[in-house]
Amino acid sequence: MGFGMATNLVKRSLVVTGFDVYPPTLTRFVAEGGSSAPTPRETVQGAKHVVFMVATAAQILSALFDEETGAIHTLVPDATLILCSTGPPEYTPNVRKLLDEKYARKDVKVVDAPVSGGTIRAADGTLTILASGPEDALAAARPILDVMAGSNLYIIPGGLGAGTKVKMVHQVLAGIHLLMASEAMGFAAALGLDTKKVFELVKASEGTSWMFENRTPHMLVDDKRIYSALNIIVKDIAIVTAGGRSAEFPLFLASTTEQVLASGVSAGYGLEDDAKLVKVYLPQNPSLVLTQASSAASSEIDAAKLKLIVQMMSAVHLVSTMEAMSLGAKVGLDAQQLFEIISTAAGTSWMFKDRAPQLLSGNWTSKKTVDDVIAELTESIEAANLLKYPLHLSGTAFQLLQLASLKGLGKQPDVAVSKLWEGPEGRLFRSKA
Amino acid sequence: MGFGMATNLVKRSLVVTGFDVYPPTLTRFVAEGGSSAPTPRETVQGAKHVVFMVATAAQILSALFDEETGAIHTLVPDATLILCSTGPPEYTPNVRKLLDEKYARKDVKVVDAPVSGGTIRAADGTLTILASGPEDALAAARPILDVMAGSNLYIIPGGLGAGTKVKMVHQVLAGIHLLMASEAMGFAAALGLDTKKVFELVKASEGTSWMFENRTPHMLVDDKRIYSALNIIVKDIAIVTAGGRSAEFPLFLASTTEQVLASGVSAGYGLEDDAKLVKVYLPQNPSLVLTQASSAASSEIDAAKLKLIVQMMSAVHLVSTMEAMSLGAKVGLDAQQLFEIISTAAGTSWMFKDRAPQLLSGNWTSKKTVDDVIAELTESIEAANLLKYPLHLSGTAFQLLQLASLKGLGKQPDVAVSKLWEGPEGRLFRSKA
Repeated sequence: MGFGMATNLVKRSLVVTGFDVYPPTLTRFVAEGGSSAPTPRETVQGAKHVVFMVATAAQILSALFDEETGAIHTLVPDATLILCSTGPPEYTPNVRKLLDEKYARKDVKVVDAPVSGGTIRAADGTLTILASGPEDALAAARPILDVMAGSNLYIIPGGLGAGTKVKMVHQVLAGIHLLMASEAMGFAAALGLDTKKVFELVKASEGTSWMFENRTPHMLVDDKRIYSALNIIVKDIAIVTAGGRSAEFPLFLASTTEQVLASGVSAGYGLEDDAKLVKVYLPQNPSLVLTQASSAASSEIDAAKLKLIVQMMSAVHLVSTMEAMSLGAKVGLDAQQLFEIISTAAGTSWMFKDRAPQLLSGNWTSKKTVDDVIAELTESIEAANLLKYPLHLSGTAFQLLQLASLKGLGKQPDVAVSKLWEGPEGRLFRSKA
Repeated sequence: MGFGMATNLVKRSLVVTGFDVYPPTLTRFVAEGGSSAPTPRETVQGAKHVVFMVATAAQILSALFDEETGAIHTLVPDATLILCSTGPPEYTPNVRKLLDEKYARKDVKVVDAPVSGGTIRAADGTLTILASGPEDALAAARPILDVMAGSNLYIIPGGLGAGTKVKMVHQVLAGIHLLMASEAMGFAAALGLDTKKVFELVKASEGTSWMFENRTPHMLVDDKRIYSALNIIVKDIAIVTAGGRSAEFPLFLASTTEQVLASGVSAGYGLEDDAKLVKVYLPQNPSLVLTQASSAASSEIDAAKLKLIVQMMSAVHLVSTMEAMSLGAKVGLDAQQLFEIISTAAGTSWMFKDRAPQLLSGNWTSKKTVDDVIAELTESIEAANLLKYPLHLSGTAFQLLQLASLKGLGKQPDVAVSKLWEGPEGRLFRSKA
């Protein structure tokens, strides 16, 4: 992603010196018109803007503060740092603190700018960037951010770390929905359904999600390609659950997701494509989703069984919407902006787009009650129990719905399950009611 | 178990006719002095007492009501039926209803009498029996129950089905603790600890449970013997979660247990010993707990790592105590009697014996707060995350503790986590406070 991003800057006539731990990438970059240097220390000499496009917060700390080779030793006065890692929300404030206190470099400006979009959009200058920081830092970084992101730049209010918080909340949904695609398709296969048909029908239903639509095709063809390795989402979800611990906020579905992903890593699938997670659900017949994908266009499907799949997906996506949006409110994010960003990104789902606005407005127009969702999900769970098919996420969502019902919310619209995440102070969201 | 039970009755000079679907068992029974018959219909002819010692409620329905061979066709007037299956709480009331309404046999007495204890105690007449029913039925059954159970007979108030409810609540704990033994020992092995030493030290700690002490030795020796097959506890936990659904009561840890057990069955371990569940946690190195069991008596142990194990076990057993006792209160059982029965049975744990009395009395003397437990469990969870070791139960318990803290209970004694299971009407237990 760094190569594409830097090459795009060069194409837009900016003068760029690059550094990478993998030398052939630098050779390619020089061929594209960039310069290169052997360490971060030498790379940043004379640069007004420094973009750190690395995977983790630890890599930023190393590139910036290494005693021998760190950029800190040569940063020009008033330099602007654009930090593009996905890390825990506290990592950019920590960088600020180190600059101020350990290195006495209050002059250096810092922007928190986690990105997503992959290598192609990096090269196109259309990365999604969630930028946050002090106003002067954002103003200084803006010309570079605009070239990197175009119209996909979001300025997140809330100061340094707010962009990373938005990314974290987004990853709650992306992680849960990724696993849910496997839980659902494995169940469809175990039920004996034509998985290709199920994919087409669920896509058109209330059970769909961006992740379901993006990942399921990889389960339906015999494809060894790694679109996104399991270890990547494992790293992202670990940031989410660590964020839940720092915020002292319960994240039931994200935690369940983390444990099942860890089972996948334990089983040796860490370097495989994350759509292969379905093997965790079908250990004795890991290719069942593939072998049950019929090519017959006219195949009939058992409507009652399909309903079991759609119901469990919409129920889990209902609860994941509430869990994620409540976390966003808890960490102080603007809920409306959070909704707008997520609803067009990889964390979205049919239920998210329908129920999150109800949650935010307080105008709960959903026709389904909590008890209705419980009744539907009961059917799916009982069918899975007969097959001894594990429903990790659906089982967790079911218990949360039952807890909501126990707390007297059973007859309220299903959005009321969000009240589980309210503290003694009450409502996390504004209400028009 | 039926053979031992029936032979014991014969030894106590009772006249017994036996039936079993497996003919060699009947041959053995006749050699011990009993009689046999070819169907339930012929077996019960002239009998005042009929004991159904079968595995499931469905088997009782078949033995009793089969159109051709069922006992119903020859039951003498005022016969007493002693139903010893483990089934859902509503199954004995359903038998009553069928007798009354379909067969017009209001004269027949029914006792709900689930048993536990295994074949040896069945033969010794020392089975644990949880008997419930109308007073006249209990009085009629008493002489037989006494011979079967001796001093291990408990009369459960609450009418037909109450005994089965007690067994269900007991199985909540037994099932969770069984899985927890695997989760903890697998983690100990993944941490590189001497698992034999861990077993000895945890046994002497607040982290211990009856199930841990009973099952762990089977993980520490290379032993192919099946003490209790995984499929048995799978059946029992399915009754528990179905009971939670009927009672509209959330059972987070029991549900997590059910999903992980289903994963074990999916992986093909259903007929193996249930202590082999640890393989689900260590798929790439399923014998790690065994290979890390040192025979060196003098081996040292890393105290900080041992603490991670003890902390997670005591935290899960804290939450399981609250989940199970709350279910008991919800289904209308006498909490004090429930405590007395479980505290000497396979569902007990160090934490259960210490914290359940605090819960019942309302005298919360525990020195640990909810937030203390969260802080401890955080250490265990973060260590497991580094190893990508899945903590299914500990992760679920952690989220419940965080939810309790969010609801304002963080500074209260850890027993306060029980408030999660309170409905709008408030406290489920009597309070001395």
